[in-house]
Parts: sequence; structure tokens; C-alpha cells
Amino acid sequence: MNAPLPHPTALHVEPRPMPPAMLAALRQRFGARCSTAAAVREQHGRDESVYAATPPEAVVYCESTEDVAAVVALASAHAVPVIPFGVGSSLEGHLLAVQGGVSIDLSRMDRIVQLHAEDLTVTVQPGVTREQLNREIRHTGLFFPVDPGANASLGGMAATRASGTNAVRYGTMRENVLALTVVTAVGEVIHTGTRAKKSSAGYDLTRLFVGSEGTLGVMTEITLKLYPLPEAVSAAICHFPSIAAAVQTTIAIIQMGVPIARCELLDANAIRAVNRHSKLSLREAPMLLMEFHGSPAGVREQAETVQAIAREQGGEDFEWASTPEERTRLWAARHQAYFAALQTRPGCRCQATDTCVPISRLAESIDESIAEAEASGIPYWTVGHVGDGNFHLSYLFDPDDPAEAAAVERLNVQMVQRALRLQGTCSGEHGIGLHKMAYLEDEAGAGAIALMRGIKRALDPQNIMNPGKIFAA
Amino acid sequence: MNAPLPHPTALHVEPRPMPPAMLAALRQRFGARCSTAAAVREQHGRDESVYAATPPEAVVYCESTEDVAAVVALASAHAVPVIPFGVGSSLEGHLLAVQGGVSIDLSRMDRIVQLHAEDLTVTVQPGVTREQLNREIRHTGLFFPVDPGANASLGGMAATRASGTNAVRYGTMRENVLALTVVTAVGEVIHTGTRAKKSSAGYDLTRLFVGSEGTLGVMTEITLKLYPLPEAVSAAICHFPSIAAAVQTTIAIIQMGVPIARCELLDANAIRAVNRHSKLSLREAPMLLMEFHGSPAGVREQAETVQAIAREQGGEDFEWASTPEERTRLWAARHQAYFAALQTRPGCRCQATDTCVPISRLAESIDESIAEAEASGIPYWTVGHVGDGNFHLSYLFDPDDPAEAAAVERLNVQMVQRALRLQGTCSGEHGIGLHKMAYLEDEAGAGAIALMRGIKRALDPQNIMNPGKIFAA
Repeated sequence: MNAPLPHPTALHVEPRPMPPAMLAALRQRFGARCSTAAAVREQHGRDESVYAATPPEAVVYCESTEDVAAVVALASAHAVPVIPFGVGSSLEGHLLAVQGGVSIDLSRMDRIVQLHAEDLTVTVQPGVTREQLNREIRHTGLFFPVDPGANASLGGMAATRASGTNAVRYGTMRENVLALTVVTAVGEVIHTGTRAKKSSAGYDLTRLFVGSEGTLGVMTEITLKLYPLPEAVSAAICHFPSIAAAVQTTIAIIQMGVPIARCELLDANAIRAVNRHSKLSLREAPMLLMEFHGSPAGVREQAETVQAIAREQGGEDFEWASTPEERTRLWAARHQAYFAALQTRPGCRCQATDTCVPISRLAESIDESIAEAEASGIPYWTVGHVGDGNFHLSYLFDPDDPAEAAAVERLNVQMVQRALRLQGTCSGEHGIGLHKMAYLEDEAGAGAIALMRGIKRALDPQNIMNPGKIFAA
Repeated sequence: MNAPLPHPTALHVEPRPMPPAMLAALRQRFGARCSTAAAVREQHGRDESVYAATPPEAVVYCESTEDVAAVVALASAHAVPVIPFGVGSSLEGHLLAVQGGVSIDLSRMDRIVQLHAEDLTVTVQPGVTREQLNREIRHTGLFFPVDPGANASLGGMAATRASGTNAVRYGTMRENVLALTVVTAVGEVIHTGTRAKKSSAGYDLTRLFVGSEGTLGVMTEITLKLYPLPEAVSAAICHFPSIAAAVQTTIAIIQMGVPIARCELLDANAIRAVNRHSKLSLREAPMLLMEFHGSPAGVREQAETVQAIAREQGGEDFEWASTPEERTRLWAARHQAYFAALQTRPGCRCQATDTCVPISRLAESIDESIAEAEASGIPYWTVGHVGDGNFHLSYLFDPDDPAEAAAVERLNVQMVQRALRLQGTCSGEHGIGLHKMAYLEDEAGAGAIALMRGIKRALDPQNIMNPGKIFAA
């Protein structure tokens, strides 16, 4: 395992200043939609990671695939980096302009391009957010399940291969993107995949772009799978005497093949923060927050099975969220846990970990991580998409205390080492960005990284697409 | 749309004869496991496609990853093609040695490497067949669902991104491969993915290799997802007054989100062949063969919903396969349909089509294809994984009648054109091989093909990995 990464400004390997001719060309084409204002650049040079902003030289607000192609064609001609930007909710430093360049703001590309309810597919522009999509398609009786905590853009979610609470049943962005329109590194527009549910036609370019973090091209249209809203939905919480008991319950649920829709762990620290932030009065003890989807009878049956499993682990009786409003309030509280936790230590930053392991190794993975967190004395909280073997133990640390920041990074390294030893991954859903480049080397090994580099060079020979992320070029 | 492909021997662009030094080196390392016998080469130079054999210059029976790496390292040193071989059941000319070279026979790599029932994962060597895998893991209460008609090798299934009858519920090889060990084009051994269920760690190399048809590397270990055997399984057949009625029933099942496990269409021609071959007495009228997985109550509920939908389309009452033996017999008959059909026209070859379209366009896609088939006068039969929008209208033609062969190819082109117009794909599950290279160009477009070529050049600069397949280099 390599040493923790230095602050990413140290990765400013080779800033490539934008030639005045390129800025002039951008201004000519985009007018006021091309901004070099300090505040705008600052906002586009950071994300929700712990890193300070590293602003791009300019920000261009694109409104169409043609706009994006025009920016990238200019960037290609001048060998200047471009960094796609959605809502800025990524967590591993994906958006920092460590080699300068232009931020391509896609938030105005927020239109649903084609809704095919009869095929359970929708094509969206990358700036559509997950909440917006579900609002706009509600009338069809369909929904899109992938839900990272933030109200992220679907472009950003595809770029980081995001998932969230529903992935245990519905899969991640990997399973739910059918087709893409992509602007390549030379500004050409290509299409990958089709609206057919499956295909054996050539290399799976769609899944190569999903999770490529803007380093291979810019997605400008994304075709997604939709699902019928379940006939019945019920949510329940169940408290456990220990985190271990909650985790053992989860492992048994998955091993038995219960088609649970959501299975989220919250520790007492997370519940305390959520109670305060969302004005709830949940008991501050380890808890599973679960949801069941299906027919009324099916949902009842699943809940009975899970309740029996939970009881064997000392779980208390289920408390049901009896109305849709109550259910929505619980899940909103869960999704706001990150902001809730930030407020518990004024001035702190949050370093979320994101390992994912095979389900049978989850207890070991969580137990040891929590023991280390307790020993560190640094405030932390834990939530987890435990049905997938994925959890986030997050540290609330003082960014002005270098010793504390270094300690948090060491703890993160230990967690990643453990996950790899347990045959898991350093990133379940947040991606690599800047922060996890060394971790990825340990996980993938030199051979696989060499292949990734080869693909990067083939598709982006000038290294202008979000350079300096995922792996060093 | 390009004209139908000439016979692939015309693609013998640049045969690269194996230097005597390489053959000597192979013989020295592999002894009798390296064969140049005509019968062995002939057997390894063809598949189940309509094409005549184009034999490799030698066949090497590998027994380990190290064996494969040794063959590829030699091939790389001498710039000689290699073609991985499983059981030879591919359908689009994947195995023809159109540029000469060495066939790497993987059938002796038939060992289960690691079974992790507690994590619902298994790691296998590529020569393990799907039936063997399910036999060997039966004691765990788990199964692997992907089931192309043939008892294919899992390496071949991963290489062609295969699916089959269960894909409507459990997904294809795309969704069910977690991790790979791969020998690259220079004979290096790399690993992709982990045993974690999800990951956002770097480029999705696993899914790049899945479906790459041996053109990027040779898979030597494959980690797969497993599923608990359902508590209850029931299978039923339902006859319909027309194919259109059966298809409309399928469309409604999918649009309503019924979690049906299998939903197969057979036309009267297919049933006639199956009856004769498998000694069944199914009524020779359009039929859906369905299977439901779940709890006893859930299975009952699904079946009731589907029966109600079917009745609206004039479907008759369900006939249940009441015992596991009867169920197995029905599915075995379905899987043998290909061989059953071949026997209905002595001396014929079978050209299977394989388009897949968005579910709402399935009726149009099938109706028009069947009208064309009827008009052609050439014997045909139809089965389909219709729940996925995928079906196979297969022609039984006289290979010695060039007019008939050309007519079949024209009909295939028309079907592909229609599928693309309906926003579908030229290949649902059989892959591209030699036969569909022109179709893929039409589907993907020049831009995406250029990207695929770039990836191929990056990973296989000498073009030695199954060259001449998927796209022209």
C-alpha cells in the first residue's frame, strides 16, 4: 500500500495554460456563457471532497451536444484540458482542475430528450438530476431507482458509476445505462448501445464510459432503464443490540435471496445527527432501515421473513412507516445524513470512506473499521448500503489540524487494505478521482492499470479529458 | 446497409504462416498437447455457423493460465494469431482461423477454482460448461441462470456476452460476470474486478472483455454471480390464436413489471420439430413457455396475473408442468429446438437470426419478419426470448444452392435493418464474429467503430488476438 496521497495541488504536474486564442474563440461562440469570473471558476474547481478548490481557467455553460463538441474541438486544437461539471456533488476530487483548462458546465442540459414509457426507457441530458427525473416521469407510473445521497446529475452519476440505497435490488448505473451519446476527445459525436435491453454487438463502449469520470469523453445524452412503481411499498426500521447483529441480519437476508429493495445500516452517531437535523426522534442505537417492494402479499411475506431473521439476532420488533409521507420523511432524513453529520462539528470537513466487500466478509470489514475509528478519538458516523457489502464510515475532522487530517487518511488506507484483503474494492460507488489513485493501483495491479492507460491513450492521445484523475498518465 | 458478406474465406486478408521455430517451441513445451492433425485442426476451425471450416495451423490443449500465457507469449513473439476455443458452439463464425494461427483449446480447463456459496459467487476456469457448473454447485442450493441453447463453455459465453431463457429476470453475462483473469496480447496475466458486488474503481475492464470475442485477450478464470434456487418454481405453457397475440401478451407482462423468470415464444414450426425430436405432443400452434420463480404465494400470484393478461389476448388456459421432471423435459426440448429443427430438412444448414428490439416494438419486428419468411418459401422456425425483445427466426437452407443461401442472407439483412430502425440491435446474444461485421458498422456507426478499433490497437497492437472478427482491423 502506498503512503497517503499528498494534497492534490501537489499533482499540478504540468499546468497547461489556455492560449489567448482559445479564450477568444470561446468568448466569440459562447458570449456570456463563457465565464472567467473568480467566483464562478472557484465554484467549478471543487466538489464535496476534503480538498480546497483548484479552479479551471474558464467555465463554459453548454446547452447542447453541439456546444460540448465545439468546446472539446477547441480544447483538442489547443491541447487544453476539459472537465465536465454537473452539480459538483462528487466526493473524491473529481472536479479539481489540477492541470488547468476549461470546466464544461452541463447543468443547463437538463431536458428529458425522449421518454418511452412503453419500453421502460428514458433518454436524458446529463444535467437532469435524479430527483428531477423522478418528478418528471411520475405520471407514467415508472421510476428511476439509482439514488446517491445528493441530488446528483445523471451525467455525474453515470461518470462515477454511482449507486445508492436501491442498488441491492435494482443495480447501479452500471446495470441501468443502456446507451450514450458521447463527445470524444477530438470533439466528434458518437453513439454507444441501443434502446434494446441486451446486445452482443461489439465492445461494450457504454460500460467503458460509465465510471470513466470524464477521462475518455463527455456524455451528452444518457438512455436509462426505468421500472414500474411497485404496487406495494413498505418501509420499516429495526433496532439491534449491536452493529454486528444488524450486519449478521443483513448477511442472512442476502444469502437467503430475499428481494429486499433497500437495506441501510445507521449507527448511533448517524442517527443522532439525523434526529437533530431532520427533527426525528429515532432511538440512538444501531438500526436497519429497510424497504420492501412488490405486491401487497409479496411485501408482507418479505417483511415476515426478514423479521424472523432479525429476531434471531436480537432485533426488536419492526416499527413501520405507515404512510407514504412518513416513509418519504425517513428516506429524506437518510439522504441528508451527510449534511446532518457535518453540522455536528462546526468547521469540520467530512472524509467518507467507501469500501465494498463480498457479503460474508461485511461483519469483519465493519467491526474492525469501527474499532479503529473508536481508538482514533476522531468523531465519525457510519451508514451503509449493507445489502451490497458497501458502507461509509465517515470522519469529521478539523481541516486546519494537519495531524488529524493525516490520521484520517491513515485510517482510510487501513480500511482499503482490509477491503482488498477481503477480496473487495476500494470504491463501492464514489469513484477514484484524485483521492484514490494510489488505492486503485493496489486494487487493480500494474497490469490492469497499464491496460487502462492504454485505453486512455487510444481515446485521448493528448490527455485533455479530465487529466490527472483515476491514474497518472 | 452494406451488401451481404462474401463467404469468409474471402476475408483471408493476410494469412500469417506460423514460423517453424514457433511450432517447434510449442511442441517442446506441450508435447502431444500440441496437435497439427488435420481432423483436430478441422474441428477447431469451425463453429455452428453456416461457414465451412477454416482450420488453424495448430491446436494447443491448455491446462492452466500459465499454459495460455506461454502460447500467447510465443504467438506475440512471432506475430501469429491465436483463437480461444471452448466447445465450438458459437454461431457467427467466431472460431474460423481466417488469418491462420493457433487454436487455444480451453476445454481441459474445466475446474471450479473457488466456490463461495456464502457470497453467492463462484470462480471457474473457462472450459467449465454451464450444465457442469450447475451440477457441481447443486449441493449449495445455488444456481447459475445464464443458459444459451447449447451446453456452452462459460469462457465462450463470457466472450460472446451470451444470455438465454433466464435473462429476462437474471440478466446476461454482462450482468453476471464479476471478475476475470485474462492473458493479454503479450502473454501477461492480469486481473479485473473483484468479488464485491459493485465497484466504482476505474475503467470497467471486466465488461470490456465480456463480449470481446477473444479479440482483446484470453479469459482464464471467470468469477460469476450465483443465485439461491427459488423456493418455488412453476412452468406453464399457453397457446395463442396467433403469434401476434402471444407477443402482445409478452409486452404487457414486461410493461407491468411481472418478475417472470422465463418467457419463451415458439411458433408452430418450432413446436413441430420439438415434438418429433423430443417425443412430445404439444399442440402445433403459437405458444409461450413460461416459468415463475419465487415463494409459493409469489409464484401463484405471478401466474394469475399473467393468465389474466393472456386471456385478454385470446390465450387458452395454462397447462402446467406439474412435476420437476416434466418441467425439465419441456426446457430440455426447448434447448434442443436447434438440433430438432436441423433434422426436419436433411442436409440443410440453419441460419439463425438474432435481433433484439425495445419491447414495445417486438410485435412489429416479429410480424414483418415472419411475413418475409413466409413469402420466401424457405423453411423456417421461430423461437424467442421474447421477454427481452429478442427472437431467433431461423432459416433451414440448402448450402449447395447458392440462390437459397443468398436469399437467406438478404432476409437476415432486412431483419437487421428493421431492428436498427426500431432502435434495436443486430445481435441480442450471438455476437458479431465474421458474419455480422457489416451489420455492426451500420448499428454502431463509423465513430464508435473507430473507438473500438482504437481500443483493439491499444490492447493488441500486432492484431494477433482472434484477428478479423467483430470489425476489420
